[in-house]
Amino acid sequence: MAIDGRKSPWNKLPHFTAVIPAGGTGTRLWPLSRASHPKFLLDLAGSGQSMLRDTVQRIAPLAGTDVLIVTGRSHASRVADDVPPQARRPILVEPAPKNSMPAIGLAAAILEREDPQAVIGTFPADHIIDDVDAFLRSVQNAYDAACEGFVVTLGISPTYAATGFGYIEVGQLLARGSDEPVHHATAFREKPAQDLASRYLGGGRHLWNAGIFLARATRLLDLLQSYDSSLAQTLRQIAREPENLASHWSTAPSISIDHAVAEPAARDGHVAVVPTKCGWDDVGDFLSLSRRFTTSDALQTGVLGRRDDVIDIDSAGLVVPQSGRLVAALGLEHVIIVDTPDALLVADAGRAQEVGGLIDLLRARDRDDLL
Amino acid sequence: MAIDGRKSPWNKLPHFTAVIPAGGTGTRLWPLSRASHPKFLLDLAGSGQSMLRDTVQRIAPLAGTDVLIVTGRSHASRVADDVPPQARRPILVEPAPKNSMPAIGLAAAILEREDPQAVIGTFPADHIIDDVDAFLRSVQNAYDAACEGFVVTLGISPTYAATGFGYIEVGQLLARGSDEPVHHATAFREKPAQDLASRYLGGGRHLWNAGIFLARATRLLDLLQSYDSSLAQTLRQIAREPENLASHWSTAPSISIDHAVAEPAARDGHVAVVPTKCGWDDVGDFLSLSRRFTTSDALQTGVLGRRDDVIDIDSAGLVVPQSGRLVAALGLEHVIIVDTPDALLVADAGRAQEVGGLIDLLRARDRDDLL
Repeated sequence: MAIDGRKSPWNKLPHFTAVIPAGGTGTRLWPLSRASHPKFLLDLAGSGQSMLRDTVQRIAPLAGTDVLIVTGRSHASRVADDVPPQARRPILVEPAPKNSMPAIGLAAAILEREDPQAVIGTFPADHIIDDVDAFLRSVQNAYDAACEGFVVTLGISPTYAATGFGYIEVGQLLARGSDEPVHHATAFREKPAQDLASRYLGGGRHLWNAGIFLARATRLLDLLQSYDSSLAQTLRQIAREPENLASHWSTAPSISIDHAVAEPAARDGHVAVVPTKCGWDDVGDFLSLSRRFTTSDALQTGVLGRRDDVIDIDSAGLVVPQSGRLVAALGLEHVIIVDTPDALLVADAGRAQEVGGLIDLLRARDRDDLL
Repeated sequence: MAIDGRKSPWNKLPHFTAVIPAGGTGTRLWPLSRASHPKFLLDLAGSGQSMLRDTVQRIAPLAGTDVLIVTGRSHASRVADDVPPQARRPILVEPAPKNSMPAIGLAAAILEREDPQAVIGTFPADHIIDDVDAFLRSVQNAYDAACEGFVVTLGISPTYAATGFGYIEVGQLLARGSDEPVHHATAFREKPAQDLASRYLGGGRHLWNAGIFLARATRLLDLLQSYDSSLAQTLRQIAREPENLASHWSTAPSISIDHAVAEPAARDGHVAVVPTKCGWDDVGDFLSLSRRFTTSDALQTGVLGRRDDVIDIDSAGLVVPQSGRLVAALGLEHVIIVDTPDALLVADAGRAQEVGGLIDLLRARDRDDLL
């Protein structure tokens, strides 16, 4: 793959497939995100295309077209329209949402049957990564450790005392000949309270959990087998009998890969972490999104959209003009304005995590048309 | 005129014509008010019709159809569409805006020629009056004083230390046999600074100037003759030679009735004031408008429009949903949200007087389509 006539510094990793779970509406990003237009189909990075497509393109230098998107029935056709078939494998459609472990585990089981040496890397479809080269270096490093038998995660160097992310506790350096350090991951920590988050930030031993994992498919499933043998057997059975997907799937528990494998495997010494500074952001709510637009001019709003559609006086925060109308802001120093053709959100940026409460109000008013 | 089968307590006042100057865009009410849709055509009272039409209907019990609307060329057809011909006299169209004195004075000159005993009352087209009975009682009282030769104004009892209104200084009680007191007005005061406004409010001798004046047409013009003989002569000349309106009009100065007549006449003892508590509001900006929607629930927004189009959590202020879209407010305690089909305003309520600054920005961006 050549860019601007230069040879790409990246080569397709042997036996490697990128698994991209594309699920979750992202209710805290309403009215941009809707049940019919989930977060991963939004262009929150301002790249001109969906974050899902960004995710596929970002990993392509290492995965080529070995990209397996896992999504739900309600989104399958939109995902198929969004990501061209020539950039991916056929989409894997879950009969019902079951959190990340069944989705990723089924992908692993299918790939394991195709290729006993398969290595998978799982990358959430709705995150932003600004420094793609740093990201790819870290993935390549993680791939090497995965080939050695580890479940490997990328750990994002924290830039502030975030309470909205889980953390990875960093242990001893792995003795390896790599350019970049790889550590044991000794534990996964839930989203902390503010004081604990500050201690994590100050202590230097905790990294953000971005939900990115690499492992040999067989290793991942064998570990799952040791922690939840029933689920591992179910997933491998589906891979053998895909025609019985629906009936087997209904018996699978709804559980995250963190709880099902990563946490117990870390306890048992099987997890490695690659620290990375790749400009990762989960853009989980509008406050998080607004941080990407903070300018040196403290009193000008950030704009995700056409700057020409916004005028502002003494205002700061984020404006998302998506209806073609002009948006005028006056004297608001911490505001989120999201303007869509059928719904408008105006919120204090500090309350961005509570946008879901508005959705409850809409549901109570039978305004499901806006959800 | 009978309402609900009851006889109206009001009778048409002899020789009386209501003059309604309908001018001014109301730029501080953008994006509701536009050059092509000025403030007086808005329904800020929530009555289901324009404030101009409210104004005509409000005075009808005393003026009947003797209602003379004075407006500019650019608004004449919209005004004619808005107020049915059977409710008014033919509209008087100014060739160019010249502030209130030429407009009102020309109406007076025309009416004086028709009826030497004519009494005019002039009522701005873009104010709100909640207590119509109190208003009509005060107008009837003012009419009586006008018949005695005074220029009579209604003085609104202040309810807060407003800096956005002019004030009328109340003098001695007129010795009259009326039910309600009528006083000399000794002076007109410009919009005061905050501390002076507080002193006015505490002192009890100052009333808000609502721009409402009653006088015999001849008396008004004779007083104008004594202060600005050229303008008075011009206006009477136009009344004699309406075919030369445009050329004479171009020589008239742009001056308010306050400056041209009310202030000097007050100094000379010719002005009376009828104190009134009629729930008057000039709704000059969105803060003023929002005060009309203040509820006992301090954290619910007022809504000018369909309440169903608004959801809010921990928000106060005013929402004007005029586009049919849903408006959601979260955590904003002092906010103005005005949602129109082509432009959205979100402002801190305390900055409502600065909305005009946004119009300057729009003009600088060649967005005259939104003005």
